[in-house]
Amino acid sequence: MDAQDYLAACLPRVDRALDEALPRADEPPARLHAAMRHLLLPGGKRLRPALALAAAEAVGGDADAALPAAVAVELVHVYSLVHDDLPCMDDDVERRGRPTVHVAFDDATAVLAGDALLTAAFAALVTGAGERGAAARVLAVRDLARAAGAAGLVGGQIDDLTGASESAAAVESVHARKSAALIAASITAGARLAGASEALLDKLHAAGVAAGIAFQITDDLLDAGEDEGCSLVRVIGEAAARERAQALLDQALGEIAELGPPAEPLRALLRYAVQRKL
Amino acid sequence: MDAQDYLAACLPRVDRALDEALPRADEPPARLHAAMRHLLLPGGKRLRPALALAAAEAVGGDADAALPAAVAVELVHVYSLVHDDLPCMDDDVERRGRPTVHVAFDDATAVLAGDALLTAAFAALVTGAGERGAAARVLAVRDLARAAGAAGLVGGQIDDLTGASESAAAVESVHARKSAALIAASITAGARLAGASEALLDKLHAAGVAAGIAFQITDDLLDAGEDEGCSLVRVIGEAAARERAQALLDQALGEIAELGPPAEPLRALLRYAVQRKL
Repeated sequence: MDAQDYLAACLPRVDRALDEALPRADEPPARLHAAMRHLLLPGGKRLRPALALAAAEAVGGDADAALPAAVAVELVHVYSLVHDDLPCMDDDVERRGRPTVHVAFDDATAVLAGDALLTAAFAALVTGAGERGAAARVLAVRDLARAAGAAGLVGGQIDDLTGASESAAAVESVHARKSAALIAASITAGARLAGASEALLDKLHAAGVAAGIAFQITDDLLDAGEDEGCSLVRVIGEAAARERAQALLDQALGEIAELGPPAEPLRALLRYAVQRKL
Repeated sequence: MDAQDYLAACLPRVDRALDEALPRADEPPARLHAAMRHLLLPGGKRLRPALALAAAEAVGGDADAALPAAVAVELVHVYSLVHDDLPCMDDDVERRGRPTVHVAFDDATAVLAGDALLTAAFAALVTGAGERGAAARVLAVRDLARAAGAAGLVGGQIDDLTGASESAAAVESVHARKSAALIAASITAGARLAGASEALLDKLHAAGVAAGIAFQITDDLLDAGEDEGCSLVRVIGEAAARERAQALLDQALGEIAELGPPAEPLRALLRYAVQRKL
């Protein structure tokens, strides 16, 4: 199973679902709707949605059942990029070769577009839930909120901004919240909507956290030389960081070893997330 | 039933639940947690939580069942205030006699605290849901997301910022989304968690929208003279605005006339929302 093939196969389905989850760009308020879509469509590789779909398959379920989770985690990911790019945060003017939302529109519109994307994520996560699937959706909402909120993404971002990451443990704590929490939630939300047991969900979550930290260390390795912000490479050096990423990946794969062949796409994606090159 | 007595009776229960729904101010990241609490505790009258509790009683249910809804709508309300106060939006430096969040902390912290409050709202709304209550929670998440997102609060705020409200209909469209959507969601979420039927929920929603627009017209009347932003008083004059608010209140009360004595607290709150003085 090649990860890039799997990503390419998921992409059109995910992009169609994302398009349907958002208000049309030509409906009023058109400026808000266009800003919500600016960074989302066309988007990136859709790693998080693919993880949600692969996790559903890994637990013997149907990838389609995980589509609401796939949409929700991508909306959370993109909202966090829109807000992180703001002048009062990372002040980034370009992303994926295009102007960031606050540059293409303005700061107020970027704040509001991010707010609307975050809200749309929770709407997407409960879309089409019937009586039978409701309990899993409720738990997925809880898990996504935990990953996105003060104990997850937002908490990681504020610690990253205040730059209190001078030890390896402090760097990994930021990585665990700012990157790994949403990657783990992508996997567990997808598996949950496909009917996974709590015991399996615990293992998938542990795999997601380990692989998510390793994913961010890989980012640090690819960005080495830029030498800004929270980076394990800066704190322990390139060779040790590479070793740590590999150990975390092995740990993640160990957590899901029992899942057998249906988990091959998930394993391939986790390997890709950690071993990708620029 | 006196509305102010009902509000006073709800307040300690709501404030305790809000306190429990948030991370403690002394836990890390303490700056984020303090910023989340800054505008929330101590807070205002808790009109929206009281509407959720009163709506639960109005449909013959238990107010305690509506507590997750009460917490969620107040968290959405406060998140929207934190973001609306930002320099790139309304640029307000004071609220309820205290510095706004971005003044007491900084812009980045205010953006992130708002994000975390919005996320916490959805977490609160699913807290403690069992198998049996899950379907109602899922629908409450859908309704709250609709009220808070691009079709509701966020969409109303962007139209308010761009100031395209020169007709009475345009003003009421902003009011319907920026104020009334969350007031209506407070009522329906509370009633939903207390087991209301879809037919009743439709009437409660209609009552909430009408009373919510009237609530905002009352704000316009109380602020008359400041003459800024989207205001029905500015467009049709004080006397006509007063008449319109009363007509909307009558319409709201008509929608819930059949509910009988258990709806008295809800009726009293709707009257209070529209007829309050400064």
